[in-house]
Amino acid sequence: MSAPKLVAIVMGSQSDWKTMHHAAETLEKLGVGYSAEIVSAHRTPDRLVKFAKGAEAAGFKVIIAGAGGAAHLPGMTAAMTPLPVLGVPVETKALSGQDSLYSIVQMPAGVPVGCLAIGEAGAINAALLAAAILALDDKALATRLADWRAAQTAAVARHPE
Amino acid sequence: MSAPKLVAIVMGSQSDWKTMHHAAETLEKLGVGYSAEIVSAHRTPDRLVKFAKGAEAAGFKVIIAGAGGAAHLPGMTAAMTPLPVLGVPVETKALSGQDSLYSIVQMPAGVPVGCLAIGEAGAINAALLAAAILALDDKALATRLADWRAAQTAAVARHPE
Amino acid sequence: MSAPKLVAIVMGSQSDWKTMHHAAETLEKLGVGYSAEIVSAHRTPDRLVKFAKGAEAAGFKVIIAGAGGAAHLPGMTAAMTPLPVLGVPVETKALSGQDSLYSIVQMPAGVPVGCLAIGEAGAINAALLAAAILALDDKALATRLADWRAAQTAAVARHPE
Amino acid sequence: MSAPKLVAIVMGSQSDWKTMHHAAETLEKLGVGYSAEIVSAHRTPDRLVKFAKGAEAAGFKVIIAGAGGAAHLPGMTAAMTPLPVLGVPVETKALSGQDSLYSIVQMPAGVPVGCLAIGEAGAINAALLAAAILALDDKALATRLADWRAAQTAAVARHPE
Amino acid sequence: MSAPKLVAIVMGSQSDWKTMHHAAETLEKLGVGYSAEIVSAHRTPDRLVKFAKGAEAAGFKVIIAGAGGAAHLPGMTAAMTPLPVLGVPVETKALSGQDSLYSIVQMPAGVPVGCLAIGEAGAINAALLAAAILALDDKALATRLADWRAAQTAAVARHPE
Amino acid sequence: MSAPKLVAIVMGSQSDWKTMHHAAETLEKLGVGYSAEIVSAHRTPDRLVKFAKGAEAAGFKVIIAGAGGAAHLPGMTAAMTPLPVLGVPVETKALSGQDSLYSIVQMPAGVPVGCLAIGEAGAINAALLAAAILALDDKALATRLADWRAAQTAAVARHPE
Amino acid sequence: MSAPKLVAIVMGSQSDWKTMHHAAETLEKLGVGYSAEIVSAHRTPDRLVKFAKGAEAAGFKVIIAGAGGAAHLPGMTAAMTPLPVLGVPVETKALSGQDSLYSIVQMPAGVPVGCLAIGEAGAINAALLAAAILALDDKALATRLADWRAAQTAAVARHPE
Amino acid sequence: MSAPKLVAIVMGSQSDWKTMHHAAETLEKLGVGYSAEIVSAHRTPDRLVKFAKGAEAAGFKVIIAGAGGAAHLPGMTAAMTPLPVLGVPVETKALSGQDSLYSIVQMPAGVPVGCLAIGEAGAINAALLAAAILALDDKALATRLADWRAAQTAAVARHPE
Repeated sequence: MSAPKLVAIVMGSQSDWKTMHHAAETLEKLGVGYSAEIVSAHRTPDRLVKFAKGAEAAGFKVIIAGAGGAAHLPGMTAAMTPLPVLGVPVETKALSGQDSLYSIVQMPAGVPVGCLAIGEAGAINAALLAAAILALDDKALATRLADWRAAQTAAVARHPE
Repeated sequence: MSAPKLVAIVMGSQSDWKTMHHAAETLEKLGVGYSAEIVSAHRTPDRLVKFAKGAEAAGFKVIIAGAGGAAHLPGMTAAMTPLPVLGVPVETKALSGQDSLYSIVQMPAGVPVGCLAIGEAGAINAALLAAAILALDDKALATRLADWRAAQTAAVARHPE
Repeated sequence: MSAPKLVAIVMGSQSDWKTMHHAAETLEKLGVGYSAEIVSAHRTPDRLVKFAKGAEAAGFKVIIAGAGGAAHLPGMTAAMTPLPVLGVPVETKALSGQDSLYSIVQMPAGVPVGCLAIGEAGAINAALLAAAILALDDKALATRLADWRAAQTAAVARHPE
Repeated sequence: MSAPKLVAIVMGSQSDWKTMHHAAETLEKLGVGYSAEIVSAHRTPDRLVKFAKGAEAAGFKVIIAGAGGAAHLPGMTAAMTPLPVLGVPVETKALSGQDSLYSIVQMPAGVPVGCLAIGEAGAINAALLAAAILALDDKALATRLADWRAAQTAAVARHPE
Repeated sequence: MSAPKLVAIVMGSQSDWKTMHHAAETLEKLGVGYSAEIVSAHRTPDRLVKFAKGAEAAGFKVIIAGAGGAAHLPGMTAAMTPLPVLGVPVETKALSGQDSLYSIVQMPAGVPVGCLAIGEAGAINAALLAAAILALDDKALATRLADWRAAQTAAVARHPE
Repeated sequence: MSAPKLVAIVMGSQSDWKTMHHAAETLEKLGVGYSAEIVSAHRTPDRLVKFAKGAEAAGFKVIIAGAGGAAHLPGMTAAMTPLPVLGVPVETKALSGQDSLYSIVQMPAGVPVGCLAIGEAGAINAALLAAAILALDDKALATRLADWRAAQTAAVARHPE
Repeated sequence: MSAPKLVAIVMGSQSDWKTMHHAAETLEKLGVGYSAEIVSAHRTPDRLVKFAKGAEAAGFKVIIAGAGGAAHLPGMTAAMTPLPVLGVPVETKALSGQDSLYSIVQMPAGVPVGCLAIGEAGAINAALLAAAILALDDKALATRLADWRAAQTAAVARHPE
Repeated sequence: MSAPKLVAIVMGSQSDWKTMHHAAETLEKLGVGYSAEIVSAHRTPDRLVKFAKGAEAAGFKVIIAGAGGAAHLPGMTAAMTPLPVLGVPVETKALSGQDSLYSIVQMPAGVPVGCLAIGEAGAINAALLAAAILALDDKALATRLADWRAAQTAAVARHPE
């Protein structure tokens, strides 16, 4: 994409991409530039620090962080950047993402993460929320987003079949 | 406050104010203008529609919606506004806010709500996240927010007592 | 069917029909007229308002609403109609319908939704409960319902095999 | 009250009255006649059978059944009456009514119970739903119910304090 | 079997037999006579009353009751018999038997049900517990049960493979 | 008491007595002899082994074991005695006895524990179930138990107050 | 392996090996000697006592115990050895290992078990934690462990694909 | 204390000390030197990095980390030190420490944290497990620990009162 990369999509492992690529594809549909990187809070803590502390200077405006289990990536990123951080709880094998959800949403007062739904829906919605945030200062994007939502509404059939 | 009201804080009932006033106070500390209103999705659905559809035109940039139990206010607001919506699950008597959390965070793909923690921490963090969003386009606020966070960091004692 | 459409079956998405068609089939067996429509609280909020506010005038007597995840359809419908609303929590991928259940059953005082079981059993039972409500004022239906239940009882084998 | 007793409020024990009297008071406000009885599925099974089988002949139109823990009263009543049965999960000490909720809402296909919220809100809403059911064939009640809801809407303050 | 039928295995539906046949087979291995019947608390309440009230006179000593969802069979049986009742929570689709477990184990003071594990393990153990109860007064059975347990112990391999 | 001690009540700690004394009192009302001992599976494992292996020879017929948290006492006792073991999950501070319940009820196939409700109700019911087991071979006890239950039934008031 | 067996891996049944072999393989990669045995707390309580009481004299330094359901093996082992005990909750069919987790982690004050994650991740991490413990007094192992972790870090790709 | 500080007790906030001081006191009883510091993963991320990376060089052998809610401190510490890390889930207001537990125990494969029970029991046991680890190479401590456990066993009364 040639659009400036305003959204950073980070995820804890390669396996999270199966969920997080939905965020990427949604941003693409909306014409929002992004980068997608693997940043493991636990296996690559130095990369995490470097990424989080450098995200603003790198030109990102919003960060989408997806992780599963004891999902520390969104919260730890939020601890080291002034940018808005959106978290996506990735579904897990044993606890279905309930562990991911609690690890992301239950942040203590002082360091916020905006948490979306578990799994694919959350990844798509993180992209939509990032776009809504960016659209506050980008009328063209606001229009594209409004069109996208209008199309979504129009696509809902009247009757089930 | 004389600052323009950029954040709308809405809540499902008077009793939610006990939680949501923490959002209001946090915004005040950061010099972010806001309004606080009771909008019950269930008892005042017309007010909900009017509020949500009119929020952008009213000059709001971010909406913070708090509710408890079958907490439909954040999601329904998000369904009718292009603005970013942040949800605060209010703690409930029987299920401790687990019901509020699920009702807010588990939004289907297409209509996002950024969910914060259950209760007071979530209310404070909703305000901080709203401020971080607004600060993307407001350097003075960005500075105030950075100062607030630096002060928060400095206030953490070295040793417990 | 030529019977007057006394029951409105609404659901949040096409995918809910897999569950909700059991309600439709049960009503057919009982000779109760119904309509089945997709009304997404989040993607088609205007359709929701129009449906809910117009349901009584349209001649419906009972509304069956099925939805999954942050399932706001039953409660929001109940907020805008005087008709009895029955809710069916549709099973979800990550949380198995626990999120749907809480979003439907935990309505605040003032706006009731009668919630049935998660999934197919709930859809069938919503139809049966709707029929029981209609049968209060329809002796022929009461007889058909009694026959249906007698047949159900008779169909329970004595010994497992 | 002189109104005919159209609603039977039954509960599993004396201690449930603390919750269920909210149903009674709500019916009184709406001018709906009711009786309130203790029917323990476990300690008075004969009374249960007699009550449930005789409820229709006794002139009741709707049954509201509240119980806690392994709450079998609503479901067992529904098994022995053609009348619509509404269940109220009473909050419990250890599991906060989660056990009551599952025991009431997860009825198998074939015998429906319309379940309301855990505790006081559920008791009030059971009464409101019962009234909505009765109002289908009672215009005066429909008017009273509409007035009650309008008053409820009007009573929601604009701003929290 | 020619042994006297001392244990009654009852279950809520044909589908529960997939779980409950493990109880039957375990009793057979231990030489304990049993009957297996479908008794639906909800679909055949009269059969339930007749069974439970007549169980002692029919010569049963212990009752094993398995059911799923809002599992009322064990508790309602216990309400109408002086015999010891053992409950088996059958695994369910949406809630994995958590609903069955709560509906069986959380009986109020006054009417006991001895609850075993969810699913197959619970069915086997219900048979073993029934046998242990019967063995209090049947030395031959006590010996068979001791042999069974010794064999079970001996069958545990030293090393995994 | 002069009655032979047929029931052993064991518990994991002194603090469990607050719950388990309800079992003792219930047995006393029914004229069933018992002993009450503290046997901590974790802090006194030797006492556990000695108790469990010697329980049958000591003349006990039924064991009631109460414990909280990672409640291993009932299951470990059952592993070392042929006697029927009934488990009482003691309510805990953080998880309300949900941990105790799972640790007791989810025994693997081969070693059964009959689990009662969390807390006081479970303690009372463990005593009642023990009595029902003993009553299979003790007609006088059967009569006392029947009287107790009849009195319980008679004590249920008709109307709440 | 020729390395001294410093770690004992025990598990409750053959089926747990599917999970626990990951602990064994991880220790092998790190050059840590181990033994793997089946020790069922419930089916082979004597083996449990003998193992736990003899583990220190047998030369073990750390014990890894994996079990599912009412998982008593880790806690009971800890009750009878001064060695550090690490517990692995094995995933279960109905409750997904939530029961195993509670049974292992919620040990009362006085007898500790260090609990790892449910399933495969927990088994691998138990081995890594055992190695970290042993490495406190084994510089060569410390180096191997550091290398292993460095390799793990290096293996995290920059971008998902 | 004059003993070398071998155990670092870190906690996320001042309020966690109410729980974590139990770890400190237990170490004192066992004559194990420790330091106690507040290290907030979210509010003081730089302090976290400095502490975790420097812990081994500072002479610590074991780290005990306590935190509540989205409890990232134990896992993030483990990501940056080769030392064994033990985690204590601090009880929380809304979710009772269930969130803390999941955030600590569900670490992904590769970076282990040994998790203890929620709250006070976990804090005490973390100290005991740390002592057991240190005792592997400290016979005097091993003796003190054995004495402590023997005293604990001896302190268990025979009969409840």
